[in-house]
Amino acid sequence: MPAPSLDDLADRLGEAQLLTDPDLLQGYRQDWAKAPNPGMPLAVVRARSTENVQEVMRWASAHGVPVVPRGAGSGLSGGATAVEGGIVLSTEQMRHIDVDPVTRTATVQPGLYNAEVKAAVAEHGLWYPPDPSSYEICSIGGNIATNAGGLCCVKYGVTTDYVLGMTVVLADGTAVRLGGARLKDSAGLSLTKLFVGSEGTLGIVTEIIVRLIPEQPPRSTVVGIFPDVVACSEAVLAITSRTRPAMLEFMDNTSIRAVEADLRMGLDTTAGAMLLAQSDLTGSDRAVETEFMAEAFRAHGASEVFATDDPDEGEQFTVARRAAFTSLGKVGSLLLEDVGVPLPALPQLVAGIEEISARRDVPIALVAHAGDGNTHPIIVLEDDDEDRAARAQLAFGEVMELAIGMGGTITGEHGVGRLKAPWLPAQLGDDVMDLSRRIKSALDPQGILNPGVML
Amino acid sequence: MPAPSLDDLADRLGEAQLLTDPDLLQGYRQDWAKAPNPGMPLAVVRARSTENVQEVMRWASAHGVPVVPRGAGSGLSGGATAVEGGIVLSTEQMRHIDVDPVTRTATVQPGLYNAEVKAAVAEHGLWYPPDPSSYEICSIGGNIATNAGGLCCVKYGVTTDYVLGMTVVLADGTAVRLGGARLKDSAGLSLTKLFVGSEGTLGIVTEIIVRLIPEQPPRSTVVGIFPDVVACSEAVLAITSRTRPAMLEFMDNTSIRAVEADLRMGLDTTAGAMLLAQSDLTGSDRAVETEFMAEAFRAHGASEVFATDDPDEGEQFTVARRAAFTSLGKVGSLLLEDVGVPLPALPQLVAGIEEISARRDVPIALVAHAGDGNTHPIIVLEDDDEDRAARAQLAFGEVMELAIGMGGTITGEHGVGRLKAPWLPAQLGDDVMDLSRRIKSALDPQGILNPGVML
Ligand SMILES: Cc1cc2nc3c(=O)[nH]c(=O)nc-3n(C[C@H](O)[C@H](O)[C@H](O)COP(=O)(O)OP(=O)(O)OC[C@H]3O[C@@H](n4cnc5c(N)ncnc54)[C@H](O)[C@@H]3O)c2cc1C
Ligand SMILES: Cc1cc2nc3c(=O)[nH]c(=O)nc-3n(C[C@H](O)[C@H](O)[C@H](O)COP(=O)(O)OP(=O)(O)OC[C@H]3O[C@@H](n4cnc5c(N)ncnc54)[C@H](O)[C@@H]3O)c2cc1C
Repeated sequence: MPAPSLDDLADRLGEAQLLTDPDLLQGYRQDWAKAPNPGMPLAVVRARSTENVQEVMRWASAHGVPVVPRGAGSGLSGGATAVEGGIVLSTEQMRHIDVDPVTRTATVQPGLYNAEVKAAVAEHGLWYPPDPSSYEICSIGGNIATNAGGLCCVKYGVTTDYVLGMTVVLADGTAVRLGGARLKDSAGLSLTKLFVGSEGTLGIVTEIIVRLIPEQPPRSTVVGIFPDVVACSEAVLAITSRTRPAMLEFMDNTSIRAVEADLRMGLDTTAGAMLLAQSDLTGSDRAVETEFMAEAFRAHGASEVFATDDPDEGEQFTVARRAAFTSLGKVGSLLLEDVGVPLPALPQLVAGIEEISARRDVPIALVAHAGDGNTHPIIVLEDDDEDRAARAQLAFGEVMELAIGMGGTITGEHGVGRLKAPWLPAQLGDDVMDLSRRIKSALDPQGILNPGVML
Repeated sequence: MPAPSLDDLADRLGEAQLLTDPDLLQGYRQDWAKAPNPGMPLAVVRARSTENVQEVMRWASAHGVPVVPRGAGSGLSGGATAVEGGIVLSTEQMRHIDVDPVTRTATVQPGLYNAEVKAAVAEHGLWYPPDPSSYEICSIGGNIATNAGGLCCVKYGVTTDYVLGMTVVLADGTAVRLGGARLKDSAGLSLTKLFVGSEGTLGIVTEIIVRLIPEQPPRSTVVGIFPDVVACSEAVLAITSRTRPAMLEFMDNTSIRAVEADLRMGLDTTAGAMLLAQSDLTGSDRAVETEFMAEAFRAHGASEVFATDDPDEGEQFTVARRAAFTSLGKVGSLLLEDVGVPLPALPQLVAGIEEISARRDVPIALVAHAGDGNTHPIIVLEDDDEDRAARAQLAFGEVMELAIGMGGTITGEHGVGRLKAPWLPAQLGDDVMDLSRRIKSALDPQGILNPGVML
């Protein structure tokens, strides 16, 4: 089949840019995960409005052309990988935001970075909590599409908990407005929430209404040096069964070393693992919580415990934790995982991951949003040893199968994308896959929205 | 068409009870809203297990018989009204609960009352926040099906924010497990959230996994006597734009008088309106928040302001607020509304409701989860004056149209049910109705699940 002509589309796009220069297209073929064998798109459209997106979808559905929505391309599951002969619909130029400080909501276009949303609402003394480590390089639209998590989610919840409404362009170009700036709304099916986490497979989000809360009090930080991640995990369980910290994260030795080599922050590179906790309680409650956590650290094997009420000093450790992926990325190419389990299974999960790493003889670094039971095993490949790469692929699948066997999930926050799609049926089962496909077909009968992702 | 034989179903139900005695059926024909002209069901099934519910749906789908799921029947929108010749599927005997204090989750069968869930988790020092005023007489399954709200939702969010997973029986009898006891999960479509608030139209919820948080600190209460609900609303906006109280509710004079006549609590029956706020901050923050709220009360016309740190004393006012519907129900028959608006529109909404009441010459009492912008105008009919009843019906619709015109919703928490279904298209628009129907048809092609509700 010859490629359909783009002229017709270009005519209808007005102010939106249509890119076809192969050099420019190159930058839109992959996301941060660098999923192999990306397609070469027919074109990239940099939309400026809901109407632009509608025109793209009308044209694409008329010609049966696949469309891959793309935010900032920081995704870790290949969800924004270009499809051969398709359109990449980029939201990078949709950057408007309006804040309503009375209702405590913001109406945001999808292309704004998470950090920009945070900054805009902070001017009103408000806080948009979800904080993926990538907050300075990921779009709010991508956050909605993946139901992004982050470091404060252990206390404040994930993206879906902050989405009140949105405008979505459906496969046929219809634009629908779902929900609104209403703090409570039970009218009709919960469609807003269905689109959160749908990874561009059901529609393209062109405007989002998020709920905000008052700015977070300053945080106190407790850091512990542990012999290993299993001991860290035991400390985590002791903490979550008693209190709800504002952050609870760990890094293993491999990731500590990678960050230290990259950023020279003075981290203890001999540490087996490092556990970071924060409290944002106020008054005497804060001291009680941090002291309780420090004791739990010691009781579960921490050789050193350091506590600080200085937010800037605490932030340094958070910066180290957030840097893990990028610093490890400088060591080698990465296979990124995102498995999560019910909390009591966390020690077994991390022990099992170590076992897989040893058995397959591939290095697996480990960082975790530990308080949520959500871990990021990261397989690091320093050279292009083909045999090791093959073993890494096996390990990649085994980690997911391990989590599934523990009642866990293959992805806590990054989404399924293309890279984890083969494992989704093992987690959900045939009936849930069938149910999901029925919904997908009802909304996108031609299957042109982000084909190959998730389902 | 002759009614299909129930014998076949009875044989397959095992321990579940099948009721066909007309006297017993009578109690299952309506919910609290007493929607007119309920059908006479063929039978009521009191299920005990997911398997029982599956058998009912297999039989019902084989014979094209409608099924109405029913929790505790406290619904206020006619959602559990029996359908002529259908089955009422009651969850009242599904009452198991398991608490995991480490992950802070509970796995609950749908028939347990909300208050029973709260009590069971409180034994572990945990709290399930959503607190409809009906918490002692409504089921957790009904809460999930309506996405119930309540008094603490202004700070702690609504039901959907606490649902991590569920087991649902689909129209054809397939049981699917969605989500799980995982604090974060981005694997696949957000189906769990789609079923929350679906009012029994997409499936029957037979098990729920809820997220819990540590128990709430004791609350301080501020009560203000205002000339009217418009002044109350102005105070509400002043408060929400600066702080996030743990409760922010009002009652108008009509509802105060009804509660006082019913419960003799010593409320000020001359008050134009009463505004209730609570703080559950700790340490000095609490005093700062309550003092700020008390000042906002005064600045917006409160003639008297009373503050107390005694939780029991504060609870008395909450009891009064919660009693509004039942006390008003003793005055006359009620048409219950649940309209919500973006907060800045709250004063205009309540003024508009007073205007409708005056113009249609029907008494409309008003209580509100004011901090959410969610109000309950309650049309009270003391006699059976047919002309007034007709005007009440007009007013009922006009209140919803008023809210829609302000960018609001016809229901913030009670659900659409049968009573508000005629107004849903005006709120959602044709495209969203069409989208909703496509999902409904994909999941329930025969339309046997709670027909007439919502869509
Ligand atoms: C260093 C680093 C750290 C990270 N840390 C975290 C973390 O802590 N927590 C976390 O959750 N994630 C994390 N991520 C992953 C990533 O940043 C998130 O998944 C983010 O939400 C992706 O946003 P994006 O704008 O880059 O989306 P993209 O990568 O462009 O797209 C992601 C997916 O969303 C779809 N999509 C994008 N925009 C839209 C739209 N408007 N409508 C419909 N679909 C759309 C795409 O098709 C794709 O499927 C990290 C990534 C990096 C590189
Ligand atoms: C005095 C009073 C005060 C109230 N205050 C509030 C309040 O503050 N906030 C609030 O949100 N509501 C309030 N309500 C309304 C009502 O209590 C809620 O809507 C509650 O969630 C209904 O629960 P139920 O078990 O009684 O459900 P039912 O009335 O039995 O059913 C409600 C709906 O849910 C469906 N359903 C029930 N169980 C299931 C299931 N297992 N699977 C699928 N569908 C199911 C039914 O088909 C129906 O559509 C109040 C009601 C009363 C009488």
